[in-house]
Amino acid sequence: MSESRNGGGRVELVSSLSDLIVSDVGVNVQAGQIVGITAAPGMEAVWRAVAEAAYRRGASYVDLWVFDGHVKHSRLTHAPLHSLAYRPPWWGERYRSLGALAGAQIRLAGEPALGLMEDIAPERLGIDMMPRLPETLEVTHARQWNWIVTPGPCAGWAARLYPDLTEAAALDRLWEEIADIMRLGEPDPAAAWRERFAQLDAVARRLTALKLDALHFQGPGTDLRVGLLPGSLWQSAGDETAGGIPFTANLPTEEVFTAPDPVRVDGHVRATRPLTVGGGTVVDLEVHFLEGRAVEVSARQGAGLVEAMIATDPGAARLGEVALVDAESRIGRLGTVFSETLLDENAASHIALGAAYPDTVSDAGSRAQINESSIHIDFMIGSPEISVTGLTADGGQLPLLRDGRWQFAV
Amino acid sequence: MSESRNGGGRVELVSSLSDLIVSDVGVNVQAGQIVGITAAPGMEAVWRAVAEAAYRRGASYVDLWVFDGHVKHSRLTHAPLHSLAYRPPWWGERYRSLGALAGAQIRLAGEPALGLMEDIAPERLGIDMMPRLPETLEVTHARQWNWIVTPGPCAGWAARLYPDLTEAAALDRLWEEIADIMRLGEPDPAAAWRERFAQLDAVARRLTALKLDALHFQGPGTDLRVGLLPGSLWQSAGDETAGGIPFTANLPTEEVFTAPDPVRVDGHVRATRPLTVGGGTVVDLEVHFLEGRAVEVSARQGAGLVEAMIATDPGAARLGEVALVDAESRIGRLGTVFSETLLDENAASHIALGAAYPDTVSDAGSRAQINESSIHIDFMIGSPEISVTGLTADGGQLPLLRDGRWQFAV
Repeated sequence: MSESRNGGGRVELVSSLSDLIVSDVGVNVQAGQIVGITAAPGMEAVWRAVAEAAYRRGASYVDLWVFDGHVKHSRLTHAPLHSLAYRPPWWGERYRSLGALAGAQIRLAGEPALGLMEDIAPERLGIDMMPRLPETLEVTHARQWNWIVTPGPCAGWAARLYPDLTEAAALDRLWEEIADIMRLGEPDPAAAWRERFAQLDAVARRLTALKLDALHFQGPGTDLRVGLLPGSLWQSAGDETAGGIPFTANLPTEEVFTAPDPVRVDGHVRATRPLTVGGGTVVDLEVHFLEGRAVEVSARQGAGLVEAMIATDPGAARLGEVALVDAESRIGRLGTVFSETLLDENAASHIALGAAYPDTVSDAGSRAQINESSIHIDFMIGSPEISVTGLTADGGQLPLLRDGRWQFAV
Repeated sequence: MSESRNGGGRVELVSSLSDLIVSDVGVNVQAGQIVGITAAPGMEAVWRAVAEAAYRRGASYVDLWVFDGHVKHSRLTHAPLHSLAYRPPWWGERYRSLGALAGAQIRLAGEPALGLMEDIAPERLGIDMMPRLPETLEVTHARQWNWIVTPGPCAGWAARLYPDLTEAAALDRLWEEIADIMRLGEPDPAAAWRERFAQLDAVARRLTALKLDALHFQGPGTDLRVGLLPGSLWQSAGDETAGGIPFTANLPTEEVFTAPDPVRVDGHVRATRPLTVGGGTVVDLEVHFLEGRAVEVSARQGAGLVEAMIATDPGAARLGEVALVDAESRIGRLGTVFSETLLDENAASHIALGAAYPDTVSDAGSRAQINESSIHIDFMIGSPEISVTGLTADGGQLPLLRDGRWQFAV
């Protein structure tokens, strides 16, 4: 911990991470593919290694989009309120074109400008959704591209996560945790992931087979029933494009997830981790649901941000995803709050406001019922203290998670 | 020189430079305008200050494109030759949209990855023209946007320019030279530029009034006649969009320039400074012209790069610009070779292969004759040792530049 990894060790980690990202357990870059990378300033080492690894696998072009939170901060400070919903059309067109060309898309997650937006009113933050674009959901739902969200460790993010360490020590610590989470210390990281994928897949098949009518989350501050659809299909990491390219959309991934019934969500839920969205942080979020809609939102910090988000469109106040995470998750065991959804959502069970993934239902009837929206915001509601019970249509109750452990053999 | 400027002094320079760039002597950002910035990793401090200054002037959105030479290096190392001419269509569309929206465009010039491409064959370098895009010329020629090319000082560039200095001292040195060149040390930098613009404007009007038939460059290794068109109009810095927004397209600017006759360029020319293009460097370039075409190219380094460039399209081997620079240029006096066209071209008289600017001729007849191409590559042919003489249609000879000084009152 005392020695900086700026030398050989860091270079090896960057290279190992990048190889994993482009490999067949990651986004699975194909020869001849155009590969998009979305990243933030400070992630240069990672995006360059990912680009190099993609070209080595035969990518025909690697196209980088760097979005800078500091420029967004100037916008939020100075630009008139009415202009904040504007999104330059070319970024959405870029995603659509990448989809039409059957490209690959890699988003390096992590927030180098974490905390930067603290002086901005949450209402303004909630209107400016850049760099989130609805076109990414369009292309994803049409299964045109193989895509991945995966961590891009960088100094700014590390400094905010571990404020008591020096900048170099904080970055070392972040890399250590990311290396653990990404299983880079295993003799064969890709093989370790294949094994975990097999476990998650077994859980997903088991849950689908149970044909549950609803889930019941219970614990401190939470008593929430989430209805499921007759066709709700539990999914784990593995995905496939329309053209037949298999890929893993999130790495790390520790979750199984499905589409809830957007009109049958009732009760009260308390977030178990802070939520970082659009550069703002929401602390101690509580949401009350009635017949599927989030009708009341409160928080110790950032409630306005959530209120602005759920006003985006009619589906934004309803659920598009419910996901279960067991205590095997390395992220959950670390206990670090990364302030980054990709990592935090894989620490604990969670729900998402906004769009559902069409492939989380099995039939056209259910597909017509799942939630639609231009947003998709995950927030964590699980912990070892929260029990999850499956409810069957005939009134049966099946314990699913207790103390973070599956209550059936996997 | 011994004290690093990372403290207050640097911040002031960044702020002063950025204010100048967006001001009415620069790109002249308008309230409500969308502003594009093109930059490279390492220029964060400058692009953030420019974005902040643009929003303070009322910009409605500032849109950043960061192009990374290291990713390009991976492409040039690994991608198949046939793929290297590919340009993702969305970048050209972004420029076209910015033009259609009557936006502003700021390119921060400077090469943080200078020297990076030394291990790439010049022929490959010459095919991959990214991030140069023909759409920028389209939008510029249609006068849809107010645009500027201006320096973006950064550590990587500084380290290559002053290899004997530490990284911090090199960056200090670069900022000192840029501050001098940009007249940031003047009590009112904008007023100092207005005065220089007035001088250059007077020279341009004088040259246009002379109605020259050709220019004759003579000196060591150079004996070149460049024919002019009946409508050749000498221009200086000031420009204006179709919508009537005045702006300065290059800052610094020390040149007067016009469109040559693309079929009347004859003789031999030796470049007086190295030329950096597409990440490669061309040293001791010599070009022989016959009836307007570059028919023979030689160089101590990088001749293949120029040969690939002039094969781009039929106009790429002909001249689109001839520019005269006097010894009043602060860049010429510094003597530093910046390996960046914006600065080096304002150190010395130069010519450009490729497209002409339509507003450098006065009538439709001449406009039909000027050169067309998708490229525009300036290279320096002037120095105090090179004399420039104006030739009139009736055989008269008028000395224009001797020892770097105008031979008429300005």
